[in-house]
Amino acid sequence: MIPDINKIFASRATVRDFDASRNVSDELLDELIAAAAHAPNTGNMQLYSVVVTRGEELKNELAGLHFNQPAAKNCNVLLTFCADTARFDSWCRASETASGLNNFGGAVTAIVDTAIFAQQFAQLAELNGLGTCFLGTATYSAKGFIEKLGLPEGVFPVLGLAVGYPAKQCEASDRLPVEAIRHNETFGPYNEENIRRWYSEKENLPESKKFLEINNKKTLAQIYAEIRYPEPLNKALGDDLLGIMNK
Amino acid sequence: MIPDINKIFASRATVRDFDASRNVSDELLDELIAAAAHAPNTGNMQLYSVVVTRGEELKNELAGLHFNQPAAKNCNVLLTFCADTARFDSWCRASETASGLNNFGGAVTAIVDTAIFAQQFAQLAELNGLGTCFLGTATYSAKGFIEKLGLPEGVFPVLGLAVGYPAKQCEASDRLPVEAIRHNETFGPYNEENIRRWYSEKENLPESKKFLEINNKKTLAQIYAEIRYPEPLNKALGDDLLGIMNK
Repeated sequence: MIPDINKIFASRATVRDFDASRNVSDELLDELIAAAAHAPNTGNMQLYSVVVTRGEELKNELAGLHFNQPAAKNCNVLLTFCADTARFDSWCRASETASGLNNFGGAVTAIVDTAIFAQQFAQLAELNGLGTCFLGTATYSAKGFIEKLGLPEGVFPVLGLAVGYPAKQCEASDRLPVEAIRHNETFGPYNEENIRRWYSEKENLPESKKFLEINNKKTLAQIYAEIRYPEPLNKALGDDLLGIMNK
Repeated sequence: MIPDINKIFASRATVRDFDASRNVSDELLDELIAAAAHAPNTGNMQLYSVVVTRGEELKNELAGLHFNQPAAKNCNVLLTFCADTARFDSWCRASETASGLNNFGGAVTAIVDTAIFAQQFAQLAELNGLGTCFLGTATYSAKGFIEKLGLPEGVFPVLGLAVGYPAKQCEASDRLPVEAIRHNETFGPYNEENIRRWYSEKENLPESKKFLEINNKKTLAQIYAEIRYPEPLNKALGDDLLGIMNK
């Protein structure tokens, strides 16, 4: 076992400010992609691809699709991890058979493969001294990415990843306690008592109190549910994606 | 940087045979869950849970839902990583607001969070000397897991993970070359020439030749598309999951 590996994983932090003077080499990206591709995947079909975007003009357009989040705008290289059943489909067509994955079930399988691959890449990037920030907005603007990146049928974005050398050291953010995540044998109940206990640390963080003030809200959950992740946003994401996944 | 970390990730291997004499302690599981929960997730909502099953009777029932794959039957502990918007929903209801994630878009977001968390857990488990095998069959039998594990509305299985100490050293399996996975700036085309080139290593493995003989098929892709992942299986998975995700 590598000494302190659990502490290294437990203290990792998302990076949103990048050192503009340092370039992430193509050779390093290749090495990280090759190693990350050894992550587990469904039946060794590897139902994913990654698009590496460096060109300033295209990168800026993609940053726009990511709602101009600073990490997307300021990163050295912008990655788009895509669910991809098209490569497998092409292989089948070149091999006297037809893929059984061109349906919603295949799309879900590809999303899981893609997220696992993307995470293995991001963790490896961090262990190699890079900073990363996942951009879930890839799914919010799926149609835009399909157009800008020229994704063929069977390929759609799952996660963006802003990559670069960190401009500064970042601190790990808070997480729920293990007992909130772990269930033994079968699923345990959620109730007002355990929910209040599990979320109290998060609710009492100085930054949470500040958010309440800035947004003029009474509870932290209201900021999440009403401002950051409101129902119309999630419904629009779902409607777009469902149409793409059912193709 | 940790020396050789890229090689360690690139040489990892799935483990399906476990040492029956060695127990995975609850303390180690807690430590791994705590560290893995620092993986990135959407807006720090942590839309996932993990059910840890040790009891022989229930573990055998779950192994049945996993089509009695040997890894599921022989593991020391069986984990079920679940997409979970229910905890967030409970927090919202306890905080004078309503979650915006109870829809298809929220379910997709939760699947991505869950796969990332599960992968971080599995990678950490391996770095701590454990062996793991992901079981994608969790989605194939989603309704069965919901019933057996008592998953409430808003919670559904994404990945099973068989965990234990390895019975023997395993070798990394083949992967597609980086050029098959990586696209530069925009998405590159798939055609018969590059597909044949990228898949030739896999097609020429001795075990692939053996599979052709056993299954009396002409191409390796036929084994994947017609035997391992046939269309009716994926369609059934999709139909079940779509119903659950739309709730």
